[in-house]
Amino acid sequence: MIKDVMIKDLKVGSCRMIISKKIIQKRGDIIIGELGQSIPFTPKRYFIVNNVPPEEVRGQHAHKVCHQILICIHGSIIAHIDDGYKKEEVILEDPSHGLYMPPMTWGAQSSFSKESKLLVLASHLYDKDEYINSYNEFRKALKIN
Amino acid sequence: MIKDVMIKDLKVGSCRMIISKKIIQKRGDIIIGELGQSIPFTPKRYFIVNNVPPEEVRGQHAHKVCHQILICIHGSIIAHIDDGYKKEEVILEDPSHGLYMPPMTWGAQSSFSKESKLLVLASHLYDKDEYINSYNEFRKALKIN
Repeated sequence: MIKDVMIKDLKVGSCRMIISKKIIQKRGDIIIGELGQSIPFTPKRYFIVNNVPPEEVRGQHAHKVCHQILICIHGSIIAHIDDGYKKEEVILEDPSHGLYMPPMTWGAQSSFSKESKLLVLASHLYDKDEYINSYNEFRKALKIN
Repeated sequence: MIKDVMIKDLKVGSCRMIISKKIIQKRGDIIIGELGQSIPFTPKRYFIVNNVPPEEVRGQHAHKVCHQILICIHGSIIAHIDDGYKKEEVILEDPSHGLYMPPMTWGAQSSFSKESKLLVLASHLYDKDEYINSYNEFRKALKIN
């Protein structure tokens, strides 16, 4: 079975769920993501989040310029997205589903299942000045009172 | 605890193990890979291999131009690498360990543990003409009799 790439708008800024091609075979499944389709930017950094206690909330920041895709490779997590006006919660539990978060999205992740592994692909190398770590500052930057 | 990127030569062509920075905290671990360090090429494609029966052997081909990094995100697999002259088996079981395979490496993967998830980052978009699927052809291309 081959599925094409599908895009699901999440109604929070230009956040969207990008559902990648999945080839299901007896000898194993392959999920394929390619630049320009599943990946709307050139990845320059990745990180893998692991061993997160279930009560922990991670993220809780926005990026000024960095685009990201969140893929839960194993287990499940809840991703929280917020464009300053609208909020949404999304369950990530299928590695074919990539949550695209453009810059200036406030993001958090919670409810990490046991042994869950979250992969994040990012458009920029690490730069601490590019992070907004306060929700008030995030809203100020968006000129929301 | 912060580890720097470490490189381990695998004595098979220019294959190497790239061991990425790992930040271990009570609230979860992060493994960080950046272009130019953990990723020696710009990724244009990724694939995630999943649900592989333990008796299955995957891969068994070489790439003419494509560079790859194999990261076992969950569980464990055995990666087989072969430059036409030397062969090696490498256990992948730590998501901080990326197996870099340059073009013209014959690669196979076996012994996928239950629920294992293999992430591959690749330097090129899919092109079937760029694959060498016969070991004899691989050796011919290397001008090995």
